[in-house]
Amino acid sequence: MMRLLIFHGNLAYKATEPVKINVREDAEEGKWLSFENVLTAFCAIEASDEGRLTEIASKAADELHTVAERVKVKDIVLYPHAHIFPRKLGRPKFAVQLLQALSDELHKRGYKVTRAPFGWYKAFKLECIGHPLSESGRTID
Amino acid sequence: MMRLLIFHGNLAYKATEPVKINVREDAEEGKWLSFENVLTAFCAIEASDEGRLTEIASKAADELHTVAERVKVKDIVLYPHAHIFPRKLGRPKFAVQLLQALSDELHKRGYKVTRAPFGWYKAFKLECIGHPLSESGRTID
Repeated sequence: MMRLLIFHGNLAYKATEPVKINVREDAEEGKWLSFENVLTAFCAIEASDEGRLTEIASKAADELHTVAERVKVKDIVLYPHAHIFPRKLGRPKFAVQLLQALSDELHKRGYKVTRAPFGWYKAFKLECIGHPLSESGRTID
Repeated sequence: MMRLLIFHGNLAYKATEPVKINVREDAEEGKWLSFENVLTAFCAIEASDEGRLTEIASKAADELHTVAERVKVKDIVLYPHAHIFPRKLGRPKFAVQLLQALSDELHKRGYKVTRAPFGWYKAFKLECIGHPLSESGRTID
């Protein structure tokens, strides 16, 4: 069951420190990257998602598409987040595959997508607009 | 099962719009309130917590105390959040009672506590420091 905790507003982040796991995506340590008027989706991938990559990616893209249309946003940042209450985290290698598949599905639906790097502790600045649709949680199963 | 999604860093928020529910705490609409070097705890209260107010409040305070000691912070903001994957939300009236009981328990443990108002949509600016202990999730049961 993939979890998406979604915020509408601005985001900046920088990679601060590598996580001690065996999967780490490229990142320029210490460099802030900033995004205005985006959907930020904190994403947690569960062990139960393994073997269902295409299905989960497609369903998650549909959910994000629905939220993005409501708030009229075309930019999405997928931000891996281990703490949004997964029952059991998926393996890192699979998590990265699913995040990339979700990114590809969103591209197909016309979105500009950024993936915050997996395998790094990150500092972030998240500004949430505060209208009724600017925060939501989705579980994908 | 109360859920706490905890961030170490800075926070600002303002009440933007009342939520259409029957419980609404006092708030000065549109006024930013800012906090530096705090723990921000997004809190979701579940229906299953009802009838266990004292127990859940005490356990949640212990968990927040543990995190706060690790990051050497004495200020905590309790920020009600309906979207951090509760199975079934508790009734608003009970949620406010539990948040107040948690605040009281944290006061007893020596913390300065602010409760973001329940019953409002809020804009926020959340800055998370990015060290390994600066993000965590806790379930209280």
